[in-house]
Amino acid sequence: MKKLKMSNLQIVAAGYFLVVLTGTLLLMLPVATVDGADTSLLDALFTAVSASCVTGLVVQDTGTHWTLFGQLVILALIQIGGLGFMTISLSFLMLTRKKIGLRHREVMVESINSSQIGGVVRLTRKILIVTAVVEGIGALLLSLRFVPQYGTAKGLYFGVFHSISAFCNAGFDLMGNYDSIVAYSADPLVNFTLMGLITIGGLGFLVWEDLWQKKWRLHRLRLQSKIVLSASFLLTVGGGLVLLLLEANNLNVGMDSGERILTALFQSCTARTAGFNSVDPAAMTGGSKLVMMTLMFIGGSPGSTAGGIKTTTIVVILMYTLAGIRHERSANIFGRSLGDDELHKAVYVFFVNLLFVLCGTTVICALQNLQLTDVLFEAFSAMGTVGITTGITRDLIPASQLVIIFLMYCGRVGSISFAVALMERKATPPVTMPSERINIG
Amino acid sequence: MKKLKMSNLQIVAAGYFLVVLTGTLLLMLPVATVDGADTSLLDALFTAVSASCVTGLVVQDTGTHWTLFGQLVILALIQIGGLGFMTISLSFLMLTRKKIGLRHREVMVESINSSQIGGVVRLTRKILIVTAVVEGIGALLLSLRFVPQYGTAKGLYFGVFHSISAFCNAGFDLMGNYDSIVAYSADPLVNFTLMGLITIGGLGFLVWEDLWQKKWRLHRLRLQSKIVLSASFLLTVGGGLVLLLLEANNLNVGMDSGERILTALFQSCTARTAGFNSVDPAAMTGGSKLVMMTLMFIGGSPGSTAGGIKTTTIVVILMYTLAGIRHERSANIFGRSLGDDELHKAVYVFFVNLLFVLCGTTVICALQNLQLTDVLFEAFSAMGTVGITTGITRDLIPASQLVIIFLMYCGRVGSISFAVALMERKATPPVTMPSERINIG
Ligand SMILES: [K+]
Ligand SMILES: [K+]
Repeated sequence: MKKLKMSNLQIVAAGYFLVVLTGTLLLMLPVATVDGADTSLLDALFTAVSASCVTGLVVQDTGTHWTLFGQLVILALIQIGGLGFMTISLSFLMLTRKKIGLRHREVMVESINSSQIGGVVRLTRKILIVTAVVEGIGALLLSLRFVPQYGTAKGLYFGVFHSISAFCNAGFDLMGNYDSIVAYSADPLVNFTLMGLITIGGLGFLVWEDLWQKKWRLHRLRLQSKIVLSASFLLTVGGGLVLLLLEANNLNVGMDSGERILTALFQSCTARTAGFNSVDPAAMTGGSKLVMMTLMFIGGSPGSTAGGIKTTTIVVILMYTLAGIRHERSANIFGRSLGDDELHKAVYVFFVNLLFVLCGTTVICALQNLQLTDVLFEAFSAMGTVGITTGITRDLIPASQLVIIFLMYCGRVGSISFAVALMERKATPPVTMPSERINIG
Repeated sequence: MKKLKMSNLQIVAAGYFLVVLTGTLLLMLPVATVDGADTSLLDALFTAVSASCVTGLVVQDTGTHWTLFGQLVILALIQIGGLGFMTISLSFLMLTRKKIGLRHREVMVESINSSQIGGVVRLTRKILIVTAVVEGIGALLLSLRFVPQYGTAKGLYFGVFHSISAFCNAGFDLMGNYDSIVAYSADPLVNFTLMGLITIGGLGFLVWEDLWQKKWRLHRLRLQSKIVLSASFLLTVGGGLVLLLLEANNLNVGMDSGERILTALFQSCTARTAGFNSVDPAAMTGGSKLVMMTLMFIGGSPGSTAGGIKTTTIVVILMYTLAGIRHERSANIFGRSLGDDELHKAVYVFFVNLLFVLCGTTVICALQNLQLTDVLFEAFSAMGTVGITTGITRDLIPASQLVIIFLMYCGRVGSISFAVALMERKATPPVTMPSERINIG
């Protein structure tokens, strides 16, 4: 009987697979594609995976290739993928916490448990309400710009589409010509609205709930919230500052200082895994591309719509690295010590993601002759479900497209599996082996 | 009084600094440079750092720019750098082990201690004898090829120079035109002799002593030796196999199958941090460059002449990653469990190295307009003290050269510091902070 029982991860993976399958079939209907254009099975699959995994890499331009029906299918996949992901991973995080709490009662005081949240059903209702409100406000703000430009119907539709796409960190756009929001690179309204939506979605529900419960008194927040907020702030502002410097003699030539700061901040914000872009990534300097890849790899925060290895993962790793530099045995942050369990998990998440990116890149490089930087950028983008590209997505041969599809799927489902992993962790190894010391480094 | 006392690391760093300084001054003497050529302070410094840190990156061709005197200075720096490094790091490893042993008596049984080795003086004597014998045999074998080609005197000199350069994992060559040993790419004698020397030097003294003491009965070896030997074998053969596949339609076109296998194996072997090359790295496919960068980053084994983060570091990380995938709490290998202390150190070593490479690359990209892949390759090469380049070393502006010099120095001195770090580690943190759980991934 045991063999027939699916693990939590298998259920999630199967669920995503069903969503992808449905999306692919709907996108293959003639009504989804504009007259004269052709959608192959692979293109439909690629689009469905990209949408439901809220990645945003596309082989067919969303605004011009698909009909309104096709675009609504994509929007539905984004909403299901983004919300479903957040709800599912949050539910697992709750259950994990509960299970941990039962084992380590001393740390339960500060940790959320499922009775506090009020169960998965109440959680889901809360998430749905917050999502509707935030996406609604975002759509209204964006419409202020789009309605005068495109007329009422199209302007409102554009507002709703891009608001959902931003909140879910999907990065799909309707601007046409694979251009993302480059046309609005100097527009504060569009930029700040999108950045707000991306940040709210990417910080994750738990952080906002904590902020709400503690009435915005930052020093009283849970450790998790403090780490997420400070890491997100430092990454966005620090990343923006570095991009500002690196593009000073390149992309920024001809921009006024306001536009320079706006584009730098927007690119830094969107790299952590929203996937819009207001400048052409292919035109960036090598240094900026490296910074973007790093930001894409790190991604957002646990229990959010964002992808990547997550801010908490990189903070745990950097804190342990800092402890090593200081010759200290324990890694501390905000007056709390981090546990070895967290380090184990951070190492696992970091290296599984890195191995997928490195293997995916090598396979694509073996399949076709492309620049290493472009392929690496594409693989980081797919694995972190980011969606920014230097433009090679459409040059990929079918086998390479399958690699990118695989990375997008693993990047998203894998993220959930990391939450599941700790939950399903064996309490004690079947056989305890004797330990033996070795030299490192 | 305490402030005046230097730490072990400071002593090592100061020692390396003195060697570099002496080397730079000697290389700046007019007698070091061939008539008509010019050696700037920066070129001399670059060469002295590259030689004493056994890296092998050069801004002036070793065979044609320097006189015999200059080449002998370089050779002396290589021998001092390689041997000194091995001796110093081994001494620290011994002392570390002893200190650990006193704290954790249960793991002392299998661990070497300094009385077993017979003190640092006896250790150094042993190392000197082994080095002389191995380098002597290597020089003889290489001379079998070089004497018929260049005559007795030059042939023997070439044999000695390249034997020392290979054993010390330095990668300096006298072939001229920055060509390394490309002319001998199909020569089994030269290739296998160099690979032998590189491997012997890169496995480290402790492994050979263990093999000797256990009379080559592999199953009785210490855990460290088992890990080092199996990782080195898998990386060399696995890396070679991947390179063979990736270059099938590129560099390997026109080669017979023997030469294909030989060049693939040689490149895989030399990337882990010897730094010779028998094919042009710039002509490799993107995938091969990525594989080479990975191999360069990993490097050789602790207590050897090689650089990089070391095989044991990557094995510990991968074993913990594997444990995560299996939902297991402890990482086991060869019937032994690895400790959290080893993981702490592996994480520290990995990320300090990675951060230096990423920051160095970003700074060089900011300073001048070069391809990201080339700069990344160069930075990995410098930090791992490898010496393979896609050819941009001579295109670097002075500020970029200083970055590479900095990375080479940190890569080498840092390696020693990692051994020191554990030794000087505080047994208990000054204040134990309460722990609080966070979500990862
Ligand atoms: K995205
Ligand atoms: K080297």
